[in-house]
Amino acid sequence: MREVFQQSLQEVQERLVGIAELVEESITQATAAFGNSDVALAENVLDDAEQIGELTLALDELAIDILARQQPVASDLRLVVGALRMGASLQRMGDLAEHIAQLSRYRYPESAIPKGLSKTFARMGELDVQMAKLVVQLLSTQDPAVIDAIRDLDDDLDELHAKVFEKVLSDKLANNPMGVVDATLASRYHERFGDYAVSVAKQMRYFLVGELA
Amino acid sequence: MREVFQQSLQEVQERLVGIAELVEESITQATAAFGNSDVALAENVLDDAEQIGELTLALDELAIDILARQQPVASDLRLVVGALRMGASLQRMGDLAEHIAQLSRYRYPESAIPKGLSKTFARMGELDVQMAKLVVQLLSTQDPAVIDAIRDLDDDLDELHAKVFEKVLSDKLANNPMGVVDATLASRYHERFGDYAVSVAKQMRYFLVGELA
Repeated sequence: MREVFQQSLQEVQERLVGIAELVEESITQATAAFGNSDVALAENVLDDAEQIGELTLALDELAIDILARQQPVASDLRLVVGALRMGASLQRMGDLAEHIAQLSRYRYPESAIPKGLSKTFARMGELDVQMAKLVVQLLSTQDPAVIDAIRDLDDDLDELHAKVFEKVLSDKLANNPMGVVDATLASRYHERFGDYAVSVAKQMRYFLVGELA
Repeated sequence: MREVFQQSLQEVQERLVGIAELVEESITQATAAFGNSDVALAENVLDDAEQIGELTLALDELAIDILARQQPVASDLRLVVGALRMGASLQRMGDLAEHIAQLSRYRYPESAIPKGLSKTFARMGELDVQMAKLVVQLLSTQDPAVIDAIRDLDDDLDELHAKVFEKVLSDKLANNPMGVVDATLASRYHERFGDYAVSVAKQMRYFLVGELA
């Protein structure tokens, strides 16, 4: 019985890593699709988001099944409860990657990136991809040092988010309301993606240290 | 022991209703603050969001404590797991009410609402308030009919969200990038608020019927 239990906890952890890897792939492709107006790549991201949704649902079912049958306590309970929450955050990250990819589809064959903002969005995308990689690393290794690394990248992302608004409100984009809409949404999506990575990091801290925050 | 258990489940339900009532108050005040550039009211919403965050954290702790000590099964387990998720959605609704209120503070003494969009945002706010009321009702009465009512309002909200973009991309707002940013964000916040109300409704369906979706 104990062995079955340990196996199912390991299954939870492996599935979380698998979903996080798919999120990493999604945001990598979404950033490329957005940067290069690559519609075929954007379609991939849409498929990934659907798959991430299904995998998260299956993980929820596994977690609830473990709670019902095996009634875990202490750090085992924290892992299972954490999986329910981390799954939800990973799913939102997949949705946001999808939203970023969608912007490039809506504007195709035009670019969704307004004048003067290509570098900023490329950098935001890089930060999101790095954060997704760190989330995979954190879930695989359970190394608490990764938690701080994720928070640091999120601070950089927030700074870029503020910069986008400065640029958008400067002269360059006057008379281009569509560019302003796209830049506002894209920046918001990137920033929220980072917030959810931080939220996964907080949940892992809860699992490792036992403190909610 | 059984009595203590039933009491703690009732406590979970009551706390969920309490948090939802605070969310309803928040979005009501946020809508008024946004519509009338009322900065004092906006400050209230900020305080409420903080309180909602604290109450959700305490609810999480209670739910995890119940899972650890009382090892619920079947519909009791679904209520406790549901509380973890519904709490997270209610907290996001509080955050979004805060974001809407913040927009009015950033632009004060100017209005954050661009020309020609007052009625649309007043209607979006009304829909959000109605959805929040229905969430309170659903959590109190556990009446499944309310679930559909929430979904219907969300469809109306999505239509208005699409309309905002039409207006924003029309001539009226050309040369007003700040207005475009505000309208884009405000509309997105209102729409997401509705999405989280639907998410609470789905979780209640899971509690009542036992199906994840």
